[in-house]
Amino acid sequence: MNPIDSLVALFSRFPGIGKKSALRMAWFLLESDASFANQLAHHIAALKEAIFPCSICGSWSESDPCPICTNPSRDKALLCVVERPQDVRVIEDAREFNGLFHVLGGVIAPLEGMGPEKLNIAKLIERVQKEDIRELILALNPTVEGDTTALYLQRVLKDSPVLISRLASGIPVGGDLEYADRLTLSHSFRGRIKLGP
Amino acid sequence: MNPIDSLVALFSRFPGIGKKSALRMAWFLLESDASFANQLAHHIAALKEAIFPCSICGSWSESDPCPICTNPSRDKALLCVVERPQDVRVIEDAREFNGLFHVLGGVIAPLEGMGPEKLNIAKLIERVQKEDIRELILALNPTVEGDTTALYLQRVLKDSPVLISRLASGIPVGGDLEYADRLTLSHSFRGRIKLGP
Repeated sequence: MNPIDSLVALFSRFPGIGKKSALRMAWFLLESDASFANQLAHHIAALKEAIFPCSICGSWSESDPCPICTNPSRDKALLCVVERPQDVRVIEDAREFNGLFHVLGGVIAPLEGMGPEKLNIAKLIERVQKEDIRELILALNPTVEGDTTALYLQRVLKDSPVLISRLASGIPVGGDLEYADRLTLSHSFRGRIKLGP
Repeated sequence: MNPIDSLVALFSRFPGIGKKSALRMAWFLLESDASFANQLAHHIAALKEAIFPCSICGSWSESDPCPICTNPSRDKALLCVVERPQDVRVIEDAREFNGLFHVLGGVIAPLEGMGPEKLNIAKLIERVQKEDIRELILALNPTVEGDTTALYLQRVLKDSPVLISRLASGIPVGGDLEYADRLTLSHSFRGRIKLGP
């Protein structure tokens, strides 16, 4: 395989990058300065050595424990449970939540052989028991697997006094009722918010 | 800037890769084997050393002259003129053309400061004079700049006996008249092909 095709094959492995986009990326590399290619190669090779999972929450970090777990100004009584490490960043970018995180590393998906034993649940139970946590906010995706995982967590934590909540699911802000699917609409009805009086 | 953001900034420089796609690529790298990142880094760094422009036609190649210029079974009387080196690959993939190539390195675009002197035109004229070329096929994009460049080439080569042709422009195969723009339709009328008798 020639060097362009080898690189195209590697670029195509990224999610959302088809063969045409991968080729366009290779052309762009060929057209740009050698310094760009060298910088890119260096950063790609260095990424996995610089970034690793935090031993407490499981989110990606340059230090262990991560800056969120060690930040004294964060509310340690609130624990947000997410599926993947990248969800931590999405939530941090929204600047709405000031508690701590716990990354499950996936959701329960029996068809894909993903049982609860493969998730970071034992550690979550340990944290709920040992840390002074008042509320567990399940920020799982509103999918069948997310629902199953939420139910499972509710069951294994039923003897604990911790409050369990889940992110509201409904019509996205700026969205249009016309384009909402049946399930989303049904969720937004069931989770409707009282306005008056 | 942390290692993830540095990499996202570099990925975002690629055409068609926005910040969200770049982030998704960084997550994917973090989730995949170290061997994938190392292979990718290696191939990116090696690309520009392995691939360079052919000194005859200007297309990207691992050897100089390129395999197309040196292939004895190609028709040396046909010369296809393209804008960019990647166009050579697109035409090669179509397996329709069996002649040689000449890469201009762009098109005349006065507004962008791209005059004919910046293109590989002197070399093209030299090839037309020295090589035994019967037909020059202009495979330039059907844009204002492509048209301008075609006209310019016609003018500078008007004293040469070489035949100059241009790729047909019209409705794409599998396309729909309804979605064709006015200019494309007008081109396809003017370039209509006689079927009978």
